[in-house]
Amino acid sequence: MKRLTGRNIMVGQSGGPTAVINSSLAGVLSAAAEANFETIYGLINGITGLIDGKLLDLTELSHQPEQLDALKRSPAMYLGSCRYKLPEKNEELYARIFQKFEEFSVGAFFYIGGNDSMDTVAKLSAYGETIGSDVRIIGVPKTIDNDLCGIDHAPGFGSAAKYIATTVREITYDTAIYKQDKVTIVEIMGRDSGWLTASAALAKMEHTPVPQLIYLPEVPFDTEKFLADVKAKLEKNNLVIVCVSEGVKNEHGEYIAASEAQVDMFGHTQLCGVGKVLENLIRDRLGIKVRAVEPNISQRCAGHLVSAVDQEEAFRLGEYAVKLSVQGMTGMMSSLSRVSNNPYQVEFSPVPVSEIANQAKPIPREWINAEGNSVTEEMLDYLAPLILGDAPAPQVNGLPDYPGIGHLIGRR
Amino acid sequence: MKRLTGRNIMVGQSGGPTAVINSSLAGVLSAAAEANFETIYGLINGITGLIDGKLLDLTELSHQPEQLDALKRSPAMYLGSCRYKLPEKNEELYARIFQKFEEFSVGAFFYIGGNDSMDTVAKLSAYGETIGSDVRIIGVPKTIDNDLCGIDHAPGFGSAAKYIATTVREITYDTAIYKQDKVTIVEIMGRDSGWLTASAALAKMEHTPVPQLIYLPEVPFDTEKFLADVKAKLEKNNLVIVCVSEGVKNEHGEYIAASEAQVDMFGHTQLCGVGKVLENLIRDRLGIKVRAVEPNISQRCAGHLVSAVDQEEAFRLGEYAVKLSVQGMTGMMSSLSRVSNNPYQVEFSPVPVSEIANQAKPIPREWINAEGNSVTEEMLDYLAPLILGDAPAPQVNGLPDYPGIGHLIGRR
Repeated sequence: MKRLTGRNIMVGQSGGPTAVINSSLAGVLSAAAEANFETIYGLINGITGLIDGKLLDLTELSHQPEQLDALKRSPAMYLGSCRYKLPEKNEELYARIFQKFEEFSVGAFFYIGGNDSMDTVAKLSAYGETIGSDVRIIGVPKTIDNDLCGIDHAPGFGSAAKYIATTVREITYDTAIYKQDKVTIVEIMGRDSGWLTASAALAKMEHTPVPQLIYLPEVPFDTEKFLADVKAKLEKNNLVIVCVSEGVKNEHGEYIAASEAQVDMFGHTQLCGVGKVLENLIRDRLGIKVRAVEPNISQRCAGHLVSAVDQEEAFRLGEYAVKLSVQGMTGMMSSLSRVSNNPYQVEFSPVPVSEIANQAKPIPREWINAEGNSVTEEMLDYLAPLILGDAPAPQVNGLPDYPGIGHLIGRR
Repeated sequence: MKRLTGRNIMVGQSGGPTAVINSSLAGVLSAAAEANFETIYGLINGITGLIDGKLLDLTELSHQPEQLDALKRSPAMYLGSCRYKLPEKNEELYARIFQKFEEFSVGAFFYIGGNDSMDTVAKLSAYGETIGSDVRIIGVPKTIDNDLCGIDHAPGFGSAAKYIATTVREITYDTAIYKQDKVTIVEIMGRDSGWLTASAALAKMEHTPVPQLIYLPEVPFDTEKFLADVKAKLEKNNLVIVCVSEGVKNEHGEYIAASEAQVDMFGHTQLCGVGKVLENLIRDRLGIKVRAVEPNISQRCAGHLVSAVDQEEAFRLGEYAVKLSVQGMTGMMSSLSRVSNNPYQVEFSPVPVSEIANQAKPIPREWINAEGNSVTEEMLDYLAPLILGDAPAPQVNGLPDYPGIGHLIGRR
C-alpha cells in the first residue's frame, strides 16, 4: 500500500562532529513525532545514505522520550556523516534524489550541518523549485568553528568553547607546578576563524591571569612580535600560556604551521602544527622551557562536558526546523538571534540558506585588542552566556552512557 | 617567643600532577587542624621550598571547611612541585633540613608524591633516626601510573582511568562517523607501566566493542603482529580503535617511539611518539585512513572529570597520614588495601616506605590476554570500582572554580 506523498520525513547529519548535533537530531525527531509525521527516516552518512539507500527507521525512537533524551546527551553523529558536496549541475543525480523522496513519501528533509551542508540545502531546495516539488528542505545549523553566517552563534560552539576554557584552565594548573620559567602553547582548532581560540580567554581568573596571549587567524601573525610578547609577559609571571588557532597566517597569508613541514627519517613529510613550530621557536630563541599541547579531537566531541545552554538551543533549533517545514517553508535554515545578554535571551527565526551558504563569519576586528594578541570585553560578553550550565549524559559504571553506534561501525 | 618543639607541621607535594593530589593535601590539613597542630606550613615546590625557605602559612585555610572543600576539588598541585631527589650522602643538607624543622617547631612532615617522593620520605626518616629526631616523616601516595608498590592502587589513578575511558569512548563516537575503513590510535601516558592504558578497556559497550586492541609496555611489541591484529579486527568493524602505552618496547627492550625520531627542516631531532610511528606504519603498509590521537596532559589534570571514589580515598589517605604521625609513627606511607570488590571496600594501614621506595608495580601477566593485545576480566574487575562517581568542582560562570595559584606563577 503506497503511502500518501509527504507523510514521512528524512533527516541527515553532515560535516564534522560537535557535542550537540545529536541534540538537534533529537529536537527534529521529537517535533516530527509531535507533528504526526508517519515514518521518520535517518540517512546513514548524510546525503550519501540517500543516494546509496542506507536508511535507519527512527520512528519508534522518536516516540520514546527516554531514548530521545539519551540521544540528546550523546556526542558526535548518531547517523554518521559525509563530506560530500553536491555538484552544481547533475540533473540525473538531483532527479534521483527527488525520486527517492517520492518513493519514500517524504514531505520534509532536514539536514543538520555547517556551511557545506547549507550548500546542500540550498541546491536541493533550488532544484525542488525548478521541478515544482513540495518537499520542504530545511537546514539545522552546527559548527564548533562558529563561522556560520545568519545566526548569532552556531550550536556546537558553546560546548566546544566550554571545553576549551575548562581545559586551558586545567592545563594552567598542570604546567604551573615547577618553579622555573616556562611557556605553554595550546593549539586550538580553527583553520580560518578564531572564535574557538578566543573562547580560551574565559579561563582567566583573579590572581591567575592566564592565558595571557591569544592569536587568531583574523590578524596576521608576526613571529618577532610574538617573541617580544612572550618576553614581556614573562616579566610578570613565570608561566605564560599562549593560545593559538591552528590556522594563524603571516602577513603574506601563509600558514605558520605549513611553513615548517617536517620530514621524518623515512622521507615522509609531516605537517607540523603551529604549536610545535612556536615551541621550537621559543626554545631556540628564548632558551626557555616550553611545551606545545593540542587538546585534540576531544574539543569537538566531549559529550561529558557540554554547555546546557548550547545543548538546549541545539534541540530547539531542531524542533524549530520541523515547525518551519510544517508552515510550508523550504530552503531555510532554522536560526536564532540574541535579544539580550543579561538576562541572556534568544529568539528563533528562519533564514534563507541561499544568503548564508558558502560564506564565513569572521571575528569583528574590534573584538580583538589593538595589539592583536588578546580579545576585548565585547568578545567576553558575547562568549560568556554560551558556556553556561552542565548537561552531562547519565553515567553507568562511572562512564557516560551513550546510545550504541553498532549501525555505524559494524559489518553485516 | 620560641614555640614548643613539634607543635607545627609541614606538608609538601612532589612529582607529576594528578587530579586529586590537592584532595590529599586537604585531608592532611583537615586532620592536622583537628589534631590541634598549631601552625601548618605548606612547602612551595616540594622539598626545595624547605631548602629555599619558600613557605606558605596554611593554618587559616585548614580551619575553613569551605576552602578545604574547594582545595579538595582542584587539580594538580596547590603548593607546586619539584623533581628534586635527595642525594644519598650529604650530611650538611640533611642537617640543614632538620635544623629547619627545629627552627619552625615541626613535629611532623608530610610528603605527597610517588616513587621518588617516597624515596625522600625514606631518606629523611632514616637520617632522622640517626640523629634521634622525633620529627615524624610520613608519605602520602599519588600517581596516575598506578605503579606504586605497597598499595592496592594509588590515588590519582582512578581519576586518570576515568578520564581515559571516557575520552576513548568519545573519540570512538568522533571517529566512527565516516563510512570508509579507518584506524584510530590513542597514545596514553605510561612509560614503564600499562595500568592507565589498560583502563581504556572500560570504554567498551554492548554493540560498540571498542577499543579492540590494547598494547602495554609489559608485553614486547611486535609490529608485524600488530598489523595482523589490526587487519583481523577490520574484518568485523570498519573502525578499529587501538590504545597504546607511550612506553611500549620491542623484544630487544627498545622503545617503539624512539626508534623513529623525526628530523625537522632545521635539523632538530623530534622524538616521535609511538602513536605517530604506528600511524605511519598503518598508512604505509595497510593503506588505510588512520589517525593518531594523544589525550595530552588533560589525562592527569582534568579536575572537571574526577572519580568520586578516587577523590575521597585521596582525602582519607591524607587524613590517615596525620593519624599515623599522631600515633608516633615515622618512615611510613599511608596506604590502603582492597577488602572486597562487591561491595567495594578498602582498609587503611601504614606501610614502611623503605619497602616500597624506588620500586615499580607491573601489571600481573595473567591480567593481560595470551595474545598480549587486550586485558582480561580480572583486570576489568580490578579497574571497575576505581572510576565510580562524579566529584566535580563547583562551577562559576560555567567553569570549574579552582583556588587561585598566584603564589605559584606570580613574580613579587
